[in-house]
Amino acid sequence: MARTTIHDIARELNTSSSTVSKALNDHPSISAATKELIKAAAQNLNYRQNRLASSLRSGRTNIIGILIPSSEIGFFGGVVHGIEKIARSNGYNILLFQSSDTGEYEVEGVETLLQTSVDGIIASIAKDTPTLDHFFDVKKRKVPLILFDRVKDELNSPSVVVDDYKGAFMATEHLIQQGYTNIAHISGPQHIKIFNDRLCGYVDALKMNNLPVNDDLIQYGRNSIESGRFSAERLLGRNKDMDAIFAVEDFTALGALQYLKQNGIKMPEKIGMIGFGNESFSPYVTPSLSTIDQQPARMGEEAFNLFLEAMAKKTAGNNGSAVEEVEEEPKKIVLEPVLIVRESSVKNG
Amino acid sequence: MARTTIHDIARELNTSSSTVSKALNDHPSISAATKELIKAAAQNLNYRQNRLASSLRSGRTNIIGILIPSSEIGFFGGVVHGIEKIARSNGYNILLFQSSDTGEYEVEGVETLLQTSVDGIIASIAKDTPTLDHFFDVKKRKVPLILFDRVKDELNSPSVVVDDYKGAFMATEHLIQQGYTNIAHISGPQHIKIFNDRLCGYVDALKMNNLPVNDDLIQYGRNSIESGRFSAERLLGRNKDMDAIFAVEDFTALGALQYLKQNGIKMPEKIGMIGFGNESFSPYVTPSLSTIDQQPARMGEEAFNLFLEAMAKKTAGNNGSAVEEVEEEPKKIVLEPVLIVRESSVKNG
Repeated sequence: MARTTIHDIARELNTSSSTVSKALNDHPSISAATKELIKAAAQNLNYRQNRLASSLRSGRTNIIGILIPSSEIGFFGGVVHGIEKIARSNGYNILLFQSSDTGEYEVEGVETLLQTSVDGIIASIAKDTPTLDHFFDVKKRKVPLILFDRVKDELNSPSVVVDDYKGAFMATEHLIQQGYTNIAHISGPQHIKIFNDRLCGYVDALKMNNLPVNDDLIQYGRNSIESGRFSAERLLGRNKDMDAIFAVEDFTALGALQYLKQNGIKMPEKIGMIGFGNESFSPYVTPSLSTIDQQPARMGEEAFNLFLEAMAKKTAGNNGSAVEEVEEEPKKIVLEPVLIVRESSVKNG
Repeated sequence: MARTTIHDIARELNTSSSTVSKALNDHPSISAATKELIKAAAQNLNYRQNRLASSLRSGRTNIIGILIPSSEIGFFGGVVHGIEKIARSNGYNILLFQSSDTGEYEVEGVETLLQTSVDGIIASIAKDTPTLDHFFDVKKRKVPLILFDRVKDELNSPSVVVDDYKGAFMATEHLIQQGYTNIAHISGPQHIKIFNDRLCGYVDALKMNNLPVNDDLIQYGRNSIESGRFSAERLLGRNKDMDAIFAVEDFTALGALQYLKQNGIKMPEKIGMIGFGNESFSPYVTPSLSTIDQQPARMGEEAFNLFLEAMAKKTAGNNGSAVEEVEEEPKKIVLEPVLIVRESSVKNG
């Protein structure tokens, strides 16, 4: 017997092949009831998608590689989740490589993904990557490269980021609106742009609200719970009047919160606290932690859409007009941060 | 100029090629100082590992596929971390596929990994997988398959699990030793073996300590924060004397903890609480949550070692004596659970 095709299923159900294809790929435009019907028919007819064959025909694998520092950081896990959801509804599968935030492993990751012939790579760059050669390699091979969150302009690739400056501005202004006036900031490594952006957002929010910027209220940390504890101790030692802390990310905020609690300092009454990143633990600590959400799922979706656009452009290029290729300015999507107010910052709750 | 090989580097440094190879692959037997020296020499000589070429020579890709429900569950993230660490020191790279605990995506995941020619697959099976055909496919193709945590004996594959029965026994006995006597259990779906094992461990710990088993103190939940809240409410409604809860996993414990807190019930004084799984949030909630650790990093290492053994056996098989293949009993590693005592269960602290 010949192999069952989507056309057989469509004929059986008196519908179109494109509806069948969409239903089998869980496209959102198809209702749950229709999907169920079509999947049942596909099973009855012993239909099985032959992706390897279709990949040989099209020269595509329908696999996208994602390269991230670590999926144990809630934000990256959320972005991957966002990419997976929309990728599946478009018939793509996702392979994930974790660089452990290490340049050497990132190079391995790019090689591994290229070796498995992914159709494209969506990446967030490791903290200590000394060169970008491995990413230039990807571009040389004409494999679409999309960046998110930790991006490098030199790569001239489409990208999605969140407005870190604005997020920090919002966090600081929220504390001011709650009546806090001596607001400290625990910052992160300044050679990484997003952390410097957050520092600038904090400084500008103070200035715009006619509050002084006090260097004693700024502590440079290292983005960890341990660093948050230490930084809170240093800040308290220097500033008897400090009444709030804006931490550069939630792990730092958690450390600061632990230190204050152990020293019997009441939050949010005596000291208000807000983090950045909306980590998975943040709603569950006591007091629950106010923070800035970076819309990870949305970021994943936008990154995938940028990949689809790059694929479409590549295909158009291959079908080839003779016009010389001009590298155009890559698309940059900047997402709005979202203020999440919880117990730790609501003085007048 | 000819391409630089590891032999050139060895000659330059007056050492052996095997030392160079190990150093470049970060093998733990080589000191950090030696690694640095060798890597510097490799860079000077413009050495670059050509993995694709070596893969074509050996018929191996040196890539392992890992299939897990979700890396957002801390336990799975920890296992992947454990595999990555030892895999890297053995020159392997890891590609990760998340099934979202869905059978359909798990089938896609197996196909995707086979399509990318991984040398082996290490998997934890999705909750709702209706058939195991896709895993039998892996075995038919002679690709080594190693299972961990959520395993199926029918597959007759090497596996690593933690002793769930014993972990539950330890958790319950710990509560008894703290002076709690009316200990409830919030369990999970009973068609999944590990959750039934935990229930049995709870029941036997009560019996062994001459405490009655009271059906009113057992609530069947669905492994979520929401289900934990609901279950705590139901248990409290039925049992005025309940003085402790052992929850089947930490998200359930977190929900129960939230419910008790909102109702002004003091932990651990009035009610003691212990979870299972040592999730990343568990040390940070108030009170910090006692739990059972499943040694995820260790589980990952053991799984990788089982993969290496399977590869060695496969190679030996290919080099082929004429002896007929006899499928031997696959190796099963059972890890010891570890009791983690925190604030939520220490009545006499």
